[in-house]
Amino acid sequence: MSNTYEMFLTITREIGQLEATAALLDWDSETYMPKGGLSIRAEQQSLLARLWHERQTDPKLGELLSKLDGKAEDEVAATNIREMRRNHKRAVKIPLKLVEQIARVSTVAKDAWVKAREASAFDKFAPHLQELLDLKRQVADAIGYERERYDALLDEYEPGATTEDLKTLFESLRTPLAKFVGELNEAERKPDPSILDRRFPVETQKLWCRQSAEGIGFSFESGRIDVSAHPFCSGTGPSDVRLTTRYQENFFPSAVFGTLHEAGHGLYEQGLPLEHVFTPRGQAISLGIHESQSRLWENMVGRSRAYWERYYPQCQTVFPEALEGVSLDEFYGAVNTVRPSLVRVEADEVTYNLHIILRFEIERDLIEQRVAVNDVPEAWNAKMKELLGITPSNDAEGCLQDIHWSMGSFGYFPTYALGNLYAAQFYAAAERAMPDLAEQIRRGEFGALLDWMRTNIHHHGQRYRANELIRNVTGTPLSIEPFMSYIRRKFSPIYKI
Amino acid sequence: MSNTYEMFLTITREIGQLEATAALLDWDSETYMPKGGLSIRAEQQSLLARLWHERQTDPKLGELLSKLDGKAEDEVAATNIREMRRNHKRAVKIPLKLVEQIARVSTVAKDAWVKAREASAFDKFAPHLQELLDLKRQVADAIGYERERYDALLDEYEPGATTEDLKTLFESLRTPLAKFVGELNEAERKPDPSILDRRFPVETQKLWCRQSAEGIGFSFESGRIDVSAHPFCSGTGPSDVRLTTRYQENFFPSAVFGTLHEAGHGLYEQGLPLEHVFTPRGQAISLGIHESQSRLWENMVGRSRAYWERYYPQCQTVFPEALEGVSLDEFYGAVNTVRPSLVRVEADEVTYNLHIILRFEIERDLIEQRVAVNDVPEAWNAKMKELLGITPSNDAEGCLQDIHWSMGSFGYFPTYALGNLYAAQFYAAAERAMPDLAEQIRRGEFGALLDWMRTNIHHHGQRYRANELIRNVTGTPLSIEPFMSYIRRKFSPIYKI
Repeated sequence: MSNTYEMFLTITREIGQLEATAALLDWDSETYMPKGGLSIRAEQQSLLARLWHERQTDPKLGELLSKLDGKAEDEVAATNIREMRRNHKRAVKIPLKLVEQIARVSTVAKDAWVKAREASAFDKFAPHLQELLDLKRQVADAIGYERERYDALLDEYEPGATTEDLKTLFESLRTPLAKFVGELNEAERKPDPSILDRRFPVETQKLWCRQSAEGIGFSFESGRIDVSAHPFCSGTGPSDVRLTTRYQENFFPSAVFGTLHEAGHGLYEQGLPLEHVFTPRGQAISLGIHESQSRLWENMVGRSRAYWERYYPQCQTVFPEALEGVSLDEFYGAVNTVRPSLVRVEADEVTYNLHIILRFEIERDLIEQRVAVNDVPEAWNAKMKELLGITPSNDAEGCLQDIHWSMGSFGYFPTYALGNLYAAQFYAAAERAMPDLAEQIRRGEFGALLDWMRTNIHHHGQRYRANELIRNVTGTPLSIEPFMSYIRRKFSPIYKI
Repeated sequence: MSNTYEMFLTITREIGQLEATAALLDWDSETYMPKGGLSIRAEQQSLLARLWHERQTDPKLGELLSKLDGKAEDEVAATNIREMRRNHKRAVKIPLKLVEQIARVSTVAKDAWVKAREASAFDKFAPHLQELLDLKRQVADAIGYERERYDALLDEYEPGATTEDLKTLFESLRTPLAKFVGELNEAERKPDPSILDRRFPVETQKLWCRQSAEGIGFSFESGRIDVSAHPFCSGTGPSDVRLTTRYQENFFPSAVFGTLHEAGHGLYEQGLPLEHVFTPRGQAISLGIHESQSRLWENMVGRSRAYWERYYPQCQTVFPEALEGVSLDEFYGAVNTVRPSLVRVEADEVTYNLHIILRFEIERDLIEQRVAVNDVPEAWNAKMKELLGITPSNDAEGCLQDIHWSMGSFGYFPTYALGNLYAAQFYAAAERAMPDLAEQIRRGEFGALLDWMRTNIHHHGQRYRANELIRNVTGTPLSIEPFMSYIRRKFSPIYKI
């Protein structure tokens, strides 16, 4: 290993260590930190952010990167150099003042958003959204882009993705998907999800969740589950992965599927190569690929009939009060109810992408100034009607429902839809490779599927970009077909259409 | 506030923030981190240690300190400048190589110590102890000292204390204390501590501990209690203080008095001025003063008759299995049993200081090379016999019992004895200021005592050195009298001598 590469690696690892440290502080803030710790924690985090930025923009890093141009000795070095060059170039283009200004403005905006949502009054949030959009346009201009500003923002969360690609993808998806939702909606016999609102004692849920995460392969030697207001997956590296979930006594899916979702993220993190920890070669590719892993384990596995054929009898035994007399088919239908709803985080796997398409279209229009901030509620409600056939009765359950814009996260939402599409395409490939996959799941065996994910996805870290990976692994570029085919195959029998 | 002082304060606060971040990572390692996280956590900690050292030795800090010489605008600035000058001067004198070498050697030494203790074979640890002593002598030489090397080491934990002062103090203490222990030991009727080994259900202990910490004023808005193998108090600042304890079903004192001890540390941390967080004016003076707070709440308050007059009836109610039929006097005697024992951490408040005197004398002799490393077991056993009248049957329960030397901590032990002496002297002063103090405790009222500690000790941060503080607050320099008088007054009636 050359001396130059070693020096480069030292800075790279330091950046990764600072990220891991900030992640642990965040995890702690959401799980165990006493309330009083908030203000001093904010100070700690802002120091870490500054140290991170100093290193990421360090001219010495730039010099090392220049020296290493074309000098990578192996694939690992090539990956690290390529990705660090990308990160460095992005970071040096954005003035520190702008970064700090966005941090300040979004702190105020988040607060304003909370209040606006409470009052269900978008106008209280509008000026802050305007300010953030202006700043984010400056960020996009600083970074540069080929076709439109949104490209530069999207690239932060899904490196290599372009607005044009997404537009094509989502445009091909919106009509057949909305049509299929309509068909399900008009089915004569629908599953009854109300059994999920019965009483499921929290202590039993906790045991169930831990066991189900362990069941699909999540290691508690290298991870843990705690409780937080909003579930997430975090940690400091592959051997220290932190999941969170939340338990609702009268709503079964929240913790149970929430845990499988986060455990899916966790399996990805635990599968990243530990020997490359703190460097791009040891880190996840993109938010979209990350989401593909959570959605795959949550939905394709965890909401499959095969899974519940294996686990429903046991589930009935441990939750007798709620599930006595409920048949497997009734239960399976209940956890797979499709219903157009106003709130994204409560959406089922079929309607979910429509919520994302709506946000993608609106935020692109906002960034490109085709829609004025004040017209957001109107645009939102019109698109809800068009895509899902329903209309929010107020801003709180409409355009004020998500926190993301108040954090200045534009270009983030599409990664959720990408996750769903990647997941279906990966899963179809895994099914081709293992024709007895459903049979394995029916036996409660997930090792082969996890190995397949490890070998094909996790172990590579950032070796490939997302679009390259999906082509390598599945043989074709990302398309909506596997997803459409998956939901048709799954939901048509449930709704008997 | 001058621009120079502001620049100085920025670096100072960064150093404090890095310390707080490292403390949180440590807390996490001891409480919630999955086993697998160990190696990557060590990497994170060593980066933080390096960043800390870089700032602490930053020549810019040195320049700012020179410019600020004699320019402090107020007491707060004077404190911060004085203490940062001290820290900076210490840090620049110790070569980074030496710091790193000690870190490396002590990692190996700790491991060797664990194995040597398991095998009860001091010779397996001896070469590592030798190596650490050599390195620490180099540290002492680098820092410099007036009279003996031990001064330079002691100063790290108890700024301003000198070996000479400690020697005088401990020499005046060892004879009357050993004599008093002998008297208690020969008493005809002794309390029976075996009731404390009965069954105390852990869940009830948890509630009891939380309530007792809250009772003396520990805020759970600004703190929490968790479980760890070895109890400690840590956190990121006055509004985020983390205590730990450990529960033993068949040994009442472990969690109950352990919690009061750590809560005593926690009250000090919570009482430090939040507006000066991350700077010396907002930090604890010394380990000795810190220990005075834990010992005061654990022993002077928590093991007092007044305390149990108030709480014993309730304690009997919640632990009926263990305490039914046990009188207050029997219980009070049990928790105040004095018995020469081999192990420091299990020692009662009377014999405890003798364990410290033993360690102080041996480690001074080791540093000054008056005792050879190979002769430690012999020296240890001879002193045990002399001070406590008992002899360890092997090295594990003798000179291998403590982890500290394997971490290179020489000069640390005396702060425990100082804590006991400070505590007694502070408590005597508080009693003079509030003649009805016992009466207050009997009513379960601790507010006035805590206020007294806050006003006289906590609020000052590092405004005064320990020896100055004790004089200011109690009117006299530190002496053994208040401690000797306290234990005589307390234990003579218990042992009816």
